[in-house]
Amino acid sequence: MLQSKLFTKTQQTAPKDELSKNAILLQKAGYIEKLMSGVYSYLYLGWRVHKNIENIIREEMDAINGQEILMPALQPKNIWDKTGRWEKLSEIMYQFKDRSDHLVGLATTHEEIITEIVKQHIKSYKDLPRYIYQIQGKFRDEPRAKSGLIRGREFFMKDLYSFHANEEDLDIYYKKVIESYKKIFSRCGLDVLIIEASGGTFTKKFSHEFMVLSSAGEDRVIYCDKCFFAQNKEISKNQPSKPCPSCNNPLKEDKGIEVGNVFKLGTKFSQQQDALYVDKDGKKKPIIMASYGIGLGRLMGTIVEIHHDANGIIWNEEVAPFKYHLLSLGNNDNTVKLAKKVYTTCQEQGIEILYDDRDISSGQKLQDADLLGIPTRLVIGNKTGGKIELKKRSESKTKLVTIDQL
Amino acid sequence: MLQSKLFTKTQQTAPKDELSKNAILLQKAGYIEKLMSGVYSYLYLGWRVHKNIENIIREEMDAINGQEILMPALQPKNIWDKTGRWEKLSEIMYQFKDRSDHLVGLATTHEEIITEIVKQHIKSYKDLPRYIYQIQGKFRDEPRAKSGLIRGREFFMKDLYSFHANEEDLDIYYKKVIESYKKIFSRCGLDVLIIEASGGTFTKKFSHEFMVLSSAGEDRVIYCDKCFFAQNKEISKNQPSKPCPSCNNPLKEDKGIEVGNVFKLGTKFSQQQDALYVDKDGKKKPIIMASYGIGLGRLMGTIVEIHHDANGIIWNEEVAPFKYHLLSLGNNDNTVKLAKKVYTTCQEQGIEILYDDRDISSGQKLQDADLLGIPTRLVIGNKTGGKIELKKRSESKTKLVTIDQL
Repeated sequence: MLQSKLFTKTQQTAPKDELSKNAILLQKAGYIEKLMSGVYSYLYLGWRVHKNIENIIREEMDAINGQEILMPALQPKNIWDKTGRWEKLSEIMYQFKDRSDHLVGLATTHEEIITEIVKQHIKSYKDLPRYIYQIQGKFRDEPRAKSGLIRGREFFMKDLYSFHANEEDLDIYYKKVIESYKKIFSRCGLDVLIIEASGGTFTKKFSHEFMVLSSAGEDRVIYCDKCFFAQNKEISKNQPSKPCPSCNNPLKEDKGIEVGNVFKLGTKFSQQQDALYVDKDGKKKPIIMASYGIGLGRLMGTIVEIHHDANGIIWNEEVAPFKYHLLSLGNNDNTVKLAKKVYTTCQEQGIEILYDDRDISSGQKLQDADLLGIPTRLVIGNKTGGKIELKKRSESKTKLVTIDQL
Repeated sequence: MLQSKLFTKTQQTAPKDELSKNAILLQKAGYIEKLMSGVYSYLYLGWRVHKNIENIIREEMDAINGQEILMPALQPKNIWDKTGRWEKLSEIMYQFKDRSDHLVGLATTHEEIITEIVKQHIKSYKDLPRYIYQIQGKFRDEPRAKSGLIRGREFFMKDLYSFHANEEDLDIYYKKVIESYKKIFSRCGLDVLIIEASGGTFTKKFSHEFMVLSSAGEDRVIYCDKCFFAQNKEISKNQPSKPCPSCNNPLKEDKGIEVGNVFKLGTKFSQQQDALYVDKDGKKKPIIMASYGIGLGRLMGTIVEIHHDANGIIWNEEVAPFKYHLLSLGNNDNTVKLAKKVYTTCQEQGIEILYDDRDISSGQKLQDADLLGIPTRLVIGNKTGGKIELKKRSESKTKLVTIDQL
């Protein structure tokens, strides 16, 4: 991609009304643009990052036999009445009337709908287990949407639902998903703490949260540096100063961002919605369920919160909008010629490269490169003597290489 | 994919309350499932088809230098007030209040939003032309949603917007998009008529519709079999019985489905929203715009309307959920062994294959294969003598081949 053809430009100044680092950096770099509180457009580079995150998640979901589907955002009230959640979620769910005066809502989650779908297809223990997921646009009427992509009113979410004939089978898959989530967050460059959580609207037990420690977080986490112990503040508020219950070392307290969660739903939904299967013994039983969520926008925002410096974003290879950022500094014939050759070679080999061929100052190009945060910068200048200066965005040292070495 | 692991099942009977062929076949085959009028879930196979259509469109948009982004569905009223379309579109746009009593709507189209975005980045004639598109979920409060995927209340749309400094440049790109659209529809297996159209909310001139002739259509088209002349009924209602104006042959009249449209917007939006650029002469001028739409669900529904027979759907190679459908008929050891070998070989070579390994009758397998409509069927039975019976879904003849020939 030629940067001269890119429709977005970087901004010199931070956007007004943004408090969070992710919103400021992503907007300065032209990755996203705010439309209203908690609602952002993903521009060309930002959408490339989002698609990379989407692909990581899709690969890992497919690897644990998830079958991808897409359920609608628009929902009729009657299905949500079956579980009483139309009322329960009315604070955060956009609910309104259509032209025929029917009440409809925009889904904040899809347990009710997937249960309705699944009961049309799963009738017998032979049809179990099944794993179904989607990557789909969700809506939440958030009261405080001040954290950029971390708390959006419209955002993509990966929601996986699993269906089982017994608890043991659920346990095995639940653990598989936890391992899958670890891979996803690791590929996104994030260290996570896994926390046994309070369960939200679903259950008081059997749910886990994946927490990234960050000053931008809205949760509080108590954890131990020496072992895997971690709890959220809500659970542990009665015992703040105790030492770690597993290793007796002192506990730390920090802010955290919840980037994913997993819930054992049990038979809550299947009982209320009559999602039954015939078991080996010929008896009808409610299907045992679990749900597993990751917010994609939140994940992207968290990556920026964790990986940036004073000059801009620092993407890792897997999520970066391009792998290489080529800068030609100076108008020397040989400089331009070599830069074009590097660009063309990369294009031919299918290597994702952004080539800053703009007619602007070297200083501005270098500044923009730091802001955009593409992992490997290649500089060709009048002074690099026919070689290419290679620099990782995450490191300060540079290295001169020839085109062949590259 | 093992069909025994697929969570969806085919249905023997047609769904209630569906009038359109696409909704009936796609639901019987387990591709989609109705949630409410005009709102469907895409199940595993259906979402694979939708993603294939998405990829065709993305490839063709990228080939004409489109830069992909994603704009939100949720929209604040104030931006739509700038063009007066909040009122104008209020009949079909879902409009409601959020928790802070602000009016918001769900986008039916994105001209206002893209214009707001673009004016932050395009300042000079040097920044033009630019081509920006998205593939994004849209909402329309349709009064009559009886045509399955062809008229949805929630659906994905590809909307491309182009921005130019002068009319000549717009004309060149407008023609390029028309050629691109022809490729898209051809890759989807559809013949289209291109019609100079009345323009809807935008303009009385300078717009074209892409029409597929079908009894399921909601439009009426007058066209000539001998040349490229075609008009929609609205334009031609005063002159129904005249011969073709270009070749004088008799005209035909048929129903048609509009699968795409292209509009020259001119400066309508840029003037109302102050999207100006500085031209070579140093003067500020409104950016010249065009927009180009394709509904993905509608396209999928239209493909089914055109390509089916009494037994089911007939997908082409490019959009089919799988390229091959392997059926093992009979439990003979050699049969099962050969089937597994074919399946494993395809898997290893990355060939998309659905393997019907279910423990059901041969008749049911053959019936389901016709209903699902995967382009090439491979049958291995006790009677195929160690060979594979190959049959195209679109043809009736079969051919026996060895695994090596395959």
